[in-house]
Amino acid sequence: MAQQHLDPTDSTAGSSPGLPTAREPGGAPTADALACYLRAQATEFLRALRLHRETGGAGHGTEESTDAARALRRSARRISGTAHTFRPLLDETWSAELCPELAWLSGTLAREHACQACLERLLLALHRLSGTAVLPAQPTEEAAGGRGADRGNLTVGAAKAGALLERQLTLARTRAHSTALQALGSARFHALADKVAVLASDVPLTPGAATTDLAPLAAAARERLTDAVAALPLVTAGSPYNAEALVHGLSPDPSPHPQDAPWHQVRLLLRLDRYAREVLDGAGAPESVRLPAAGQALDRHRDASEAAAAAAAAARTPRIAPATAYALGVLHADQRHEVEAARFAFQQSWQKQAVGAG
Amino acid sequence: MAQQHLDPTDSTAGSSPGLPTAREPGGAPTADALACYLRAQATEFLRALRLHRETGGAGHGTEESTDAARALRRSARRISGTAHTFRPLLDETWSAELCPELAWLSGTLAREHACQACLERLLLALHRLSGTAVLPAQPTEEAAGGRGADRGNLTVGAAKAGALLERQLTLARTRAHSTALQALGSARFHALADKVAVLASDVPLTPGAATTDLAPLAAAARERLTDAVAALPLVTAGSPYNAEALVHGLSPDPSPHPQDAPWHQVRLLLRLDRYAREVLDGAGAPESVRLPAAGQALDRHRDASEAAAAAAAAARTPRIAPATAYALGVLHADQRHEVEAARFAFQQSWQKQAVGAG
Repeated sequence: MAQQHLDPTDSTAGSSPGLPTAREPGGAPTADALACYLRAQATEFLRALRLHRETGGAGHGTEESTDAARALRRSARRISGTAHTFRPLLDETWSAELCPELAWLSGTLAREHACQACLERLLLALHRLSGTAVLPAQPTEEAAGGRGADRGNLTVGAAKAGALLERQLTLARTRAHSTALQALGSARFHALADKVAVLASDVPLTPGAATTDLAPLAAAARERLTDAVAALPLVTAGSPYNAEALVHGLSPDPSPHPQDAPWHQVRLLLRLDRYAREVLDGAGAPESVRLPAAGQALDRHRDASEAAAAAAAAARTPRIAPATAYALGVLHADQRHEVEAARFAFQQSWQKQAVGAG
Repeated sequence: MAQQHLDPTDSTAGSSPGLPTAREPGGAPTADALACYLRAQATEFLRALRLHRETGGAGHGTEESTDAARALRRSARRISGTAHTFRPLLDETWSAELCPELAWLSGTLAREHACQACLERLLLALHRLSGTAVLPAQPTEEAAGGRGADRGNLTVGAAKAGALLERQLTLARTRAHSTALQALGSARFHALADKVAVLASDVPLTPGAATTDLAPLAAAARERLTDAVAALPLVTAGSPYNAEALVHGLSPDPSPHPQDAPWHQVRLLLRLDRYAREVLDGAGAPESVRLPAAGQALDRHRDASEAAAAAAAAARTPRIAPATAYALGVLHADQRHEVEAARFAFQQSWQKQAVGAG
């Protein structure tokens, strides 16, 4: 598959729709493009925040408030990531103050969603492993506890493992939800929201920013990505059924697996690279290389890694039945193989992208 | 990789060394080739039997007596498989009497080896899963119980699972050994050995056999093989990480997995095809296609399938600790993924063979 050459006028291409291009015809993208992107993301942040308040973020996740929380995280990540990549163009003190707060917020908001996604992934896997039909796609209702009918098709061990995971992850999700609500009501958050409100109209550029070319900074972000990818064990990952992901499946080391860390790091660098491209695309950059499949593979890698850890953690619950522990062991190994499969998928898509770009 | 065109004069090519060719120059292989092959295998059977008695088959498997038992099984399978493929050339009553007895013998002798191989496979996997060094390659000593030092590197669950498997499979092996010894001392076996002794000098060909061409019968064996392969889910198997082998990993159905049966069947048909080729090679057939990689993949498939079933069976032992059950669950899933990996390997080698032959 060749790389994707995106039409910069295509609003579905990932840059926020309606962004004016901030590049002189034929010139390099400059600080204007950056300011424009940051203002748009700040505006999006405020819009999402308003929506979250209107849709009653206080309740247990309606669809709208979930969407609003996702949009909040999305813009928080983009502001923080962009500030990181284009640091030399932005006021240093401002960045140093804002970025950790954005990271705190998106981390806090992400946890509830992560618990829910992890539970759904594990219950789906349990059903797959039991050879029964896939769950109906109504995650919120199901999490509320109406899974009795489905459990009828599971073995005792699988059903007990499912019930245990549901209890533990629902509890974790509820806690994460409370924590997120507290965070959104805190003085700390209001200070952050104020800063973002200022950003929506006034981006604190450095004096030299106006004449600085963005391209080398974006290229540096890409280089950090390619360096990190080059350090991954891609030859192994590209060889199917290498059994590498489960190597420490029964190791006395605690989860998460240390071998996963470099992959998680690449996932973050891939994201920073994407945001840098969005800034440049917004500035009408003629060429944009997206790596959607690679990013999806690493999302799946992260999700499976966390699900495997959750299954292993549940197996350490005192006084569970052997059949429950056995099912959790099978589940853990299944998710570690998902980790391996995700690495394989990443290797394949990265290779294709490299061939397409070469 | 292209198919292998073997030099029929090469004694390493799989036909028994020193077999005279039984084909008129330029003619088709006939019953002489079949008789020649069967006499050679019967002689090999008697030689292995003598060796087994001399090396004291009564003791717990010395290396020589293990080799002798393997040679006995090897020739028993060949006589029986050849009689099956070339049935129309052989006396019907004789075949009907001999073949079930040979199957009984090779099945009985195979069980001890299978228990030992299964135990070794599972203990190796436990060590791999614990991220510890691989076991030293001294299976018989280890099975005798000297694994304390190795266990030090395992987690409690893995160590307990290893001890449980060792207990259960060593017991099964000991029983299989006794059964095999009883079988070799039985009147039933002596009657079989007498029949094979007659075969070593006198092959009961049918009256029409002398003028019958062997090639169509070998081709029919090949066709049964290719038909069975065509019925396998090879598209799925060729897609890495299809997660198919573990689909029923927690199903209430008992092991062995029904989805494995067609693969086991192909393994047997591949073997019959190989024996038919050996008969034709012995007759100086100019062209011989071997599928060693495909056969190895299906051996691995069978071994992993049995190991996964043994881990699942061990997990049903009453009153085991949850940590033990968890380790057995991980182990079961690991071996089911080995099953899937073996199917992938088979698909790859079969495809290569087909491309090479086309």
